[in-house]
Amino acid sequence: MSGNSAGKALVLTCFGESHGTCVGAVLDGCPAGLPLTVDDIQVELDKRKPGLTAVSTPRKEEDQVEVLSGVFNGRTTGAPICLTIRNRDAESEAYEQIKNKPRPGHADLAAILKYGGFGDYRGGGRFSGRVTAAYVAAGAIAKKLLATLGVEVLAHTVQIGKVKTVKDVSFDQVRENVYGNAVRCAVPESAGLMEKEVAKAAEEGDSVGGVVEAVALNVPAGLGEPVFDSLDSDVAKMMFNVPAVKGVEFGAGFQAASMRGSENNDAYAVQKGKVTSLTNNAGGIIGGLSTGMPIVVRVAFKPTSSIAKRQRTVNLEKMKESEIQVTGRHDPCIVPRAVPVVESCLALVLADHALRAGKMPRVIKA
Amino acid sequence: MSGNSAGKALVLTCFGESHGTCVGAVLDGCPAGLPLTVDDIQVELDKRKPGLTAVSTPRKEEDQVEVLSGVFNGRTTGAPICLTIRNRDAESEAYEQIKNKPRPGHADLAAILKYGGFGDYRGGGRFSGRVTAAYVAAGAIAKKLLATLGVEVLAHTVQIGKVKTVKDVSFDQVRENVYGNAVRCAVPESAGLMEKEVAKAAEEGDSVGGVVEAVALNVPAGLGEPVFDSLDSDVAKMMFNVPAVKGVEFGAGFQAASMRGSENNDAYAVQKGKVTSLTNNAGGIIGGLSTGMPIVVRVAFKPTSSIAKRQRTVNLEKMKESEIQVTGRHDPCIVPRAVPVVESCLALVLADHALRAGKMPRVIKA
Amino acid sequence: MSGNSAGKALVLTCFGESHGTCVGAVLDGCPAGLPLTVDDIQVELDKRKPGLTAVSTPRKEEDQVEVLSGVFNGRTTGAPICLTIRNRDAESEAYEQIKNKPRPGHADLAAILKYGGFGDYRGGGRFSGRVTAAYVAAGAIAKKLLATLGVEVLAHTVQIGKVKTVKDVSFDQVRENVYGNAVRCAVPESAGLMEKEVAKAAEEGDSVGGVVEAVALNVPAGLGEPVFDSLDSDVAKMMFNVPAVKGVEFGAGFQAASMRGSENNDAYAVQKGKVTSLTNNAGGIIGGLSTGMPIVVRVAFKPTSSIAKRQRTVNLEKMKESEIQVTGRHDPCIVPRAVPVVESCLALVLADHALRAGKMPRVIKA
Amino acid sequence: MSGNSAGKALVLTCFGESHGTCVGAVLDGCPAGLPLTVDDIQVELDKRKPGLTAVSTPRKEEDQVEVLSGVFNGRTTGAPICLTIRNRDAESEAYEQIKNKPRPGHADLAAILKYGGFGDYRGGGRFSGRVTAAYVAAGAIAKKLLATLGVEVLAHTVQIGKVKTVKDVSFDQVRENVYGNAVRCAVPESAGLMEKEVAKAAEEGDSVGGVVEAVALNVPAGLGEPVFDSLDSDVAKMMFNVPAVKGVEFGAGFQAASMRGSENNDAYAVQKGKVTSLTNNAGGIIGGLSTGMPIVVRVAFKPTSSIAKRQRTVNLEKMKESEIQVTGRHDPCIVPRAVPVVESCLALVLADHALRAGKMPRVIKA
Repeated sequence: MSGNSAGKALVLTCFGESHGTCVGAVLDGCPAGLPLTVDDIQVELDKRKPGLTAVSTPRKEEDQVEVLSGVFNGRTTGAPICLTIRNRDAESEAYEQIKNKPRPGHADLAAILKYGGFGDYRGGGRFSGRVTAAYVAAGAIAKKLLATLGVEVLAHTVQIGKVKTVKDVSFDQVRENVYGNAVRCAVPESAGLMEKEVAKAAEEGDSVGGVVEAVALNVPAGLGEPVFDSLDSDVAKMMFNVPAVKGVEFGAGFQAASMRGSENNDAYAVQKGKVTSLTNNAGGIIGGLSTGMPIVVRVAFKPTSSIAKRQRTVNLEKMKESEIQVTGRHDPCIVPRAVPVVESCLALVLADHALRAGKMPRVIKA
Repeated sequence: MSGNSAGKALVLTCFGESHGTCVGAVLDGCPAGLPLTVDDIQVELDKRKPGLTAVSTPRKEEDQVEVLSGVFNGRTTGAPICLTIRNRDAESEAYEQIKNKPRPGHADLAAILKYGGFGDYRGGGRFSGRVTAAYVAAGAIAKKLLATLGVEVLAHTVQIGKVKTVKDVSFDQVRENVYGNAVRCAVPESAGLMEKEVAKAAEEGDSVGGVVEAVALNVPAGLGEPVFDSLDSDVAKMMFNVPAVKGVEFGAGFQAASMRGSENNDAYAVQKGKVTSLTNNAGGIIGGLSTGMPIVVRVAFKPTSSIAKRQRTVNLEKMKESEIQVTGRHDPCIVPRAVPVVESCLALVLADHALRAGKMPRVIKA
Repeated sequence: MSGNSAGKALVLTCFGESHGTCVGAVLDGCPAGLPLTVDDIQVELDKRKPGLTAVSTPRKEEDQVEVLSGVFNGRTTGAPICLTIRNRDAESEAYEQIKNKPRPGHADLAAILKYGGFGDYRGGGRFSGRVTAAYVAAGAIAKKLLATLGVEVLAHTVQIGKVKTVKDVSFDQVRENVYGNAVRCAVPESAGLMEKEVAKAAEEGDSVGGVVEAVALNVPAGLGEPVFDSLDSDVAKMMFNVPAVKGVEFGAGFQAASMRGSENNDAYAVQKGKVTSLTNNAGGIIGGLSTGMPIVVRVAFKPTSSIAKRQRTVNLEKMKESEIQVTGRHDPCIVPRAVPVVESCLALVLADHALRAGKMPRVIKA
Repeated sequence: MSGNSAGKALVLTCFGESHGTCVGAVLDGCPAGLPLTVDDIQVELDKRKPGLTAVSTPRKEEDQVEVLSGVFNGRTTGAPICLTIRNRDAESEAYEQIKNKPRPGHADLAAILKYGGFGDYRGGGRFSGRVTAAYVAAGAIAKKLLATLGVEVLAHTVQIGKVKTVKDVSFDQVRENVYGNAVRCAVPESAGLMEKEVAKAAEEGDSVGGVVEAVALNVPAGLGEPVFDSLDSDVAKMMFNVPAVKGVEFGAGFQAASMRGSENNDAYAVQKGKVTSLTNNAGGIIGGLSTGMPIVVRVAFKPTSSIAKRQRTVNLEKMKESEIQVTGRHDPCIVPRAVPVVESCLALVLADHALRAGKMPRVIKA
């Protein structure tokens, strides 16, 4: 049953497959009057381009977004905005073998069982990371909407394989450094180590995972609609739809489990006439509501499932054990390209909730 | 804007406050014909009772569920099932101070900002852990629905404070041991250490957090509706609405970030004529779909926010810094009572998705 | 699959059966701060009481609403409001015969086919007009919300059997006369004729239908979210869930089909510095949006299905033709009691759309 | 707030404007395995083509559907199906005048008030009847889905202006005659009179309305999810989103209001071993559930708002009264082109409810 729409006030509906005509999105509920050009979207989309750097797949996707509806005279109209990104440069033959031999770590087998073998298996079809290009295109609009409220959304790589950045990274470091290195890391020294981690795995025909952190600044307090549409609930839901995500945590996250209450509670103080908290173990969300402090979410990615190494699998036709060696061009680490995706997901949820909470007008005048 | 409903085929709508008349739930979409008695629900509800054990609050809630609709002649009718659990034994006076002095770690401040001070602040009102009693009541029905498909859902404490259980716990240990100790741990030796961890924190007027793991067995492959209503997305969303949850991970979870692909991928094999995977780092979900392997999800809880220790806060009326000492009776660790809640949340999402995927009939005959 | 919730920003979830414990509603999404007492609701509920008048059933329901959640210190809190109305005075034995002999005009047969015979058939169960008591209770809150915007919602009987009121009834007539006669008609002369129409049918063991018109005044322009959540779409959807409704039309309605464009188009003019239309054939809605003119909707009710006359039916157990004579106490015309229901349905949809369109604050201060 | 999606199991999301790049639809939730070609859709789309006949606008739209996703190797995959229909032949200059002078009977004024003047006003933009091309394209898929259950959906014109067909038209007449005349009428004699009615209005620079009836045969009993997602509720909601619709009725409809219960109730009998009703005043729906009898719904259309005659309006810039003469090419009666639209709307709702009620598999094997 249908599950390709997300959000309630700002509804994102996605479509498209890796090797079909295109991937795309319909964004419904965007207020009228927001200035919007194709370039506004393209600049975000370019951030997840493959082939830019040593750590990423040599495929050339040259993603170009097309805006099919909802924009008129350079502004949004209030009607749904349809965005498409045509697919190119697909080598579908490489995927013929997976029709009967599911790749370990991929959705191949579960998809065959669910869709009766009618799914588009080429390049992973609907399960490909390529679908996230549509999230980024829509996310560009969400980010512009949030900017009208002064909200800024950032993301950066904090771990690749066994290399982690030091914990405290300033927002300025994120703003300045992330797109200056191949791994989208805010700390240049760590970036170098991370690049080596990826290179080493690639050499060995293997892959590595990592962790992306996203941050939202100046988020008004009170976003989130408990009990079930809590802000953290909706952010987590959105993050887990990104392929390869295995964990999501806010603020102190899993570390909080081993902390004492007196240590974990964020004490309140008055600063510049406003109530603030002295620490942010909550990651900007308590009781499912934004607190006004920065929202901090970390997203764990497993290593790329497609690896050159020989793996055990099953030939479904013959129902006997077999082996597979995944060919084609694949990122040895998808984390760097996931950075703008995670950023977009956070932006889309925040914009939806800003609308739901009545913080954003239905018509943007400025 | 409304956010108190969860699920699409099996829709749970919750209501009620900690110190109001009752907490309750409407479960809509339950197939007709399921045998259901008040006792079926009460037995699950009793698992989250406070006051049973040394580690838990001395409040006596004596939660008694009432079934107001949707059941006739001992079976569900297909109409919405309304369940209420009356509140008793509330000491609301203890909460007068928090009207103007938000408790650190609690939703008090964000709630005041969102609801203009009109919220029911007594006992945390709508933000109280007490609302989860309604999840457990509804979850009892979800578990009965899943049982008709042979699906079993279990949960247990795997960490309290700094004490963790050894990683591999058998399902039989979970079934047998969890409700035999105060901390709901499947490993008796660990249970003892965990109880001490809680006791020590309590003595010091402090609190501890922990981690609950839930497992679902015999889940049919193909549950989940990608891309946005992925099974892990919906499970995570449901878990994050439980008060105090700060992290959710599936299978290898955050550990997967530092693994190699060759290590993390679960190789396929044929066992007893069926395809299975030799490991379960995926936690039973790939590409947002259940794989047929056990679903394994871990949920991190922060330490209880209400602690006896003196904390820094702000007097909102005077806009100046102040202190607060939270009185009233509070669990020094809410993890043990969260075990049946986490179990219920997983059951509710799985039952919803089994219906969505067409795995469950609209009328149960048996 | 679940279908007992309506609305998106203001979500009404209903439950309960005719002869079960109660009927009830959860209203989720109501802004915080709205002054609300039990009496505010009870006064609306009393309008649909049976047994008040000669034209209505002698059953004594004495509907008393209970507010279980979402109200604190005389104001709404922003949390879901659960309302229940206990059932009394049920004579369930009269319904034993319908288990196997479906009553013509009733949902009995379709319900058996859908719910496998597990439905609560007593008094029509979930299909009883009694469920609309919950709509009226929730509608009382919607009306109070709309009043904060200056919106007024009215309803009156315009046809019973073959007796119609003259077409143009002033809003003042509606306000003053409707609850002054048994048939809820704004024109006293017509009311007399209508009462006779009902009495005559009753004498003959038969029943009559009719038409209710609802009007909303001072509705801000621009409510409605085309293309699918158009204002007329959502109003019509809500009306058709009221038992016995067979037709819905706005403004000129079916008459418009035989009009010329030049005759049907409402010309614009400037009055008191504001744009207005000189006629209102549109019934206040064009293109799915409110125009600012009064919203006018008419709802056709079929005659009560339960009649004393002998009717042809089928004995389902024996699969042979049979007869049935419906006993029990039934309204010979349900139209008068439907008047507050239709009014409530219109109010609920308008309040939902006022919230969706950003016309209503999330916190009501006044 | 977003309102461009309809349905719950089979979700239709629409986008596009009259004079923009295209109109389109995403259909999400279609089972996998349904054989589907571009021609299957094109043949339905061709039924609403303008310019075919004397009664319709001379615009040449040459609608060609493109399938962007969700179909692979000639079958649906279970992924969302995106359909686009490019716009051509647009004369946008004709619409410059309406920026400040709203056309009577059109959504112009309400749209300006809602979207702050940022809406795409060319050709009515999002409010144009052109958006219904996307409904027909998606409806073609719904009809193919229903055909797998043996369900057939038909529609025909039963009234244009003051000319009505005789009431009883056989299903065979509908199947054979509807697309054999310009007005889509099942009775050739009436068709001639209707054509004259349209021609006469056109000559006078005026327009006429009419009524379309849709019928669904072999619908399984028990579709519909009361109380709020009743089958008639959802059908009516879908119909009212079609531009120019002012009334919807089922079976006896508004006539039922003046009938007696003994006359309106459909008596049951046994025919060929099955329970059937001897009449169908219910129009195939009772209590919001399909009864197994033919579903009969009638939809009233107002006369085309765009007429050549001079009309009173207001110049919004100057806030003074003015006149407008609508130029451009417009159908003097949109009813004939609405026939396939009404048919598609009924098909879409029935397919959605067949999925919701568990009557349709998630994978179509055949």
